Amino acid sequence: MNILQIIEQKVNGQALSEAAITFFVHGYAKGNIPDYQISALLMAIKLKGMNELETAQLTQAMVTSGDTVDLSGIEGITVDKHSTGGVGDKTSLVIGPIVAALGLKLAKMSGRGLGHTGGTIDKLESIPGLTTSLTSTQFKQQVNDIGLAIIGQTQSLVPADKKMYALRDVTGTVQSIPLIASSIMSKKIASGAKTILLDVKFGSGAFMKTVADAKVLAKAMVAIGRNLGRDTRAMITDMDQPLGFAIGNRNEVLEAIETLKGKGPSDLLSLCVQASAMMAVQAKRAPTLEKGITQVEEVIHNGLALKKLYAMIAAQGGNMHALQQTDFITTTSAVDVTPTSSGYIHHIDALMLGEIASMLGAGRLTKDDAIDPNAGIIMRKKVGDFVDQKTILATFMTNRVVDPNWNMQIQQAFHIGPTPKPIQPIIHDWILS
Amino acid sequence: MNILQIIEQKVNGQALSEAAITFFVHGYAKGNIPDYQISALLMAIKLKGMNELETAQLTQAMVTSGDTVDLSGIEGITVDKHSTGGVGDKTSLVIGPIVAALGLKLAKMSGRGLGHTGGTIDKLESIPGLTTSLTSTQFKQQVNDIGLAIIGQTQSLVPADKKMYALRDVTGTVQSIPLIASSIMSKKIASGAKTILLDVKFGSGAFMKTVADAKVLAKAMVAIGRNLGRDTRAMITDMDQPLGFAIGNRNEVLEAIETLKGKGPSDLLSLCVQASAMMAVQAKRAPTLEKGITQVEEVIHNGLALKKLYAMIAAQGGNMHALQQTDFITTTSAVDVTPTSSGYIHHIDALMLGEIASMLGAGRLTKDDAIDPNAGIIMRKKVGDFVDQKTILATFMTNRVVDPNWNMQIQQAFHIGPTPKPIQPIIHDWILS
Repeated sequence: MNILQIIEQKVNGQALSEAAITFFVHGYAKGNIPDYQISALLMAIKLKGMNELETAQLTQAMVTSGDTVDLSGIEGITVDKHSTGGVGDKTSLVIGPIVAALGLKLAKMSGRGLGHTGGTIDKLESIPGLTTSLTSTQFKQQVNDIGLAIIGQTQSLVPADKKMYALRDVTGTVQSIPLIASSIMSKKIASGAKTILLDVKFGSGAFMKTVADAKVLAKAMVAIGRNLGRDTRAMITDMDQPLGFAIGNRNEVLEAIETLKGKGPSDLLSLCVQASAMMAVQAKRAPTLEKGITQVEEVIHNGLALKKLYAMIAAQGGNMHALQQTDFITTTSAVDVTPTSSGYIHHIDALMLGEIASMLGAGRLTKDDAIDPNAGIIMRKKVGDFVDQKTILATFMTNRVVDPNWNMQIQQAFHIGPTPKPIQPIIHDWILS
Repeated sequence: MNILQIIEQKVNGQALSEAAITFFVHGYAKGNIPDYQISALLMAIKLKGMNELETAQLTQAMVTSGDTVDLSGIEGITVDKHSTGGVGDKTSLVIGPIVAALGLKLAKMSGRGLGHTGGTIDKLESIPGLTTSLTSTQFKQQVNDIGLAIIGQTQSLVPADKKMYALRDVTGTVQSIPLIASSIMSKKIASGAKTILLDVKFGSGAFMKTVADAKVLAKAMVAIGRNLGRDTRAMITDMDQPLGFAIGNRNEVLEAIETLKGKGPSDLLSLCVQASAMMAVQAKRAPTLEKGITQVEEVIHNGLALKKLYAMIAAQGGNMHALQQTDFITTTSAVDVTPTSSGYIHHIDALMLGEIASMLGAGRLTKDDAIDPNAGIIMRKKVGDFVDQKTILATFMTNRVVDPNWNMQIQQAFHIGPTPKPIQPIIHDWILS
């Protein structure tokens, strides 16, 4: 077996064997195969594709390139969720506590944000004192005790994916369904949970721009789960406007808390209730999605879900007192943005708002940038709302010198039309198998 | 302009602009763009193709990546030829003297052999004392004086091609018509001659295995010449058996001399006569191919062509006395090979004989191997000949310890059948525009 034969097979449109896939993935992770051969192979894979079996084997080879998390010491059903990322996506902070309140076990590894989408880890770390670095023992103990822990991804998890992703990023091979699907799923499989719920977003603020593309990616990932023996399901959700009202870090934490009180934005609440209910179905805690929704509404109503969030924050060292103060969010400027015309909001450019939030200080452009946990945007209106020139569309908060362009750019992100705009359900579709 | 945009355009099947092509070729040659990005781009080019204009612009960008040869100081019409390489291909040693005898000017840069095909430079250097390293001034002076000089390719010629070819060789991107065509033509264009005749070989011993593939490559190269303003034509020639009888270095030099005396193998003589005549037509020395053939036959018959070869050998320091001795070729072993069955020779596996000749010492497996100028194979019979078990098929000569497998492998290279086999003309087709 050698890498040139493997490249040639893929160039000729042949399916690669499991041995060939393992050879190149492990060989690359170990540094035995140079970048320039793997980039040629990745381009051939991008242009010639991979079938379902190859994609599952690629995922498995990435998983076995490094350490895997052994969750066998955790009592009960371990569950996991993953979102492909979007602007204002704080769902893990809502869903995690709900499913823990239902008795499921969420031992979640999460990432930091880069560019216009914030990461769950950044949001959690905006709480003073909170750490997302736990030892393996602490991590599992907390999940056993509370049902919930969210930590940063360890370096030793799926090293092949880290190396291949970095290479794809600079060789024009990011956009490939088998490569995207295996990259995401390898981290989920390696994280060890028995069930996986995927939130694949579509729209201007998402990685996948169209419903069709989102479905293709979701199906590829669900197929990987099926081939590797993990109950995997996916929801296709709308990111044609940011999720909820808050974009930032501390303001997203507060919105998650409001949502766990049943008072959050309706799109965020709807998505989190249904996602949690589906995870309960996957874990066989609920017999049907409808029954699962009833169970979820109960743990929101009786406050148990919110208690789980607070328990996790406290267990991970977060300063609960600071979190509950009215000056938890402190910025030198808070600017209300009003529209230049009246009418109905048809669309809110999530990507644009995400990029502005980054400029306000809420995100990072390079991985070494520091984040201002206070900076962000609170939307006051969403798609379907009627606005006139006195209506506040959004308020942006920053500790930086206010750039006069920000106001105009936020105005431009809100697309306003003369006719009413029907509201679409947040969950567009389910991919169950 | 950046390399990721260029990769993306090619991935999407778009034609690259001249600026984009120059950017990546010169950037790579200068070391400003890393291997892994160029290998991804080369794979995208291999799988998505390049149109005629892109291929010409790629060739031009490779030419301008380094030095070019200025032949303007040479009086008369400068001509050039190139063969895609085959076993027993000593045509440059025959055609060069013929066209010089016709008054054309051949200032040729040639390569060394690797693997199963020998290089013209290796063949010339098998003559004691002969150098293929001339200064630019010596090179042009000799062409002005004799009409003919053959030297090794300088390092500063087409550096982008050298670097890209080395990368293609290890990334599965060798087999791509635009990449092969531009690689060959960049060296011909940079070498400065006004007209170019290409000998594109097909068959088991050639780079292109089928007539159809050879024609596609020939047309791509002729189109490059047309787009870059050089009269370029191609012949499609048969390499389903080695050319002539001799495979090696000194024995090929002797065969070239015999051919210039009009006594060489008929396939080699026919190819060289027609090729030289076409070069005379391209240089407007002959009005038609037929008239050109008459002129060529004349300079063979009157000995002028052979005198040109001798003049070149002498001018480049070759020991004419040694060349004319009966012990010019000296080996410790000379083994006659007879067939295991009788019948008509249908096919002679040129690749196999080339590989055996390498093992005898005539070729190199790595570029630092030394060549034994004496080692080689003389075929005694060719396709169409009837043989029985007493007929000598070939004689192999070596200074190495004789491996008993060599006899058997040479037997196997001669495919013998019960029925007569019609002989095909050596030139299968012409690509004139």
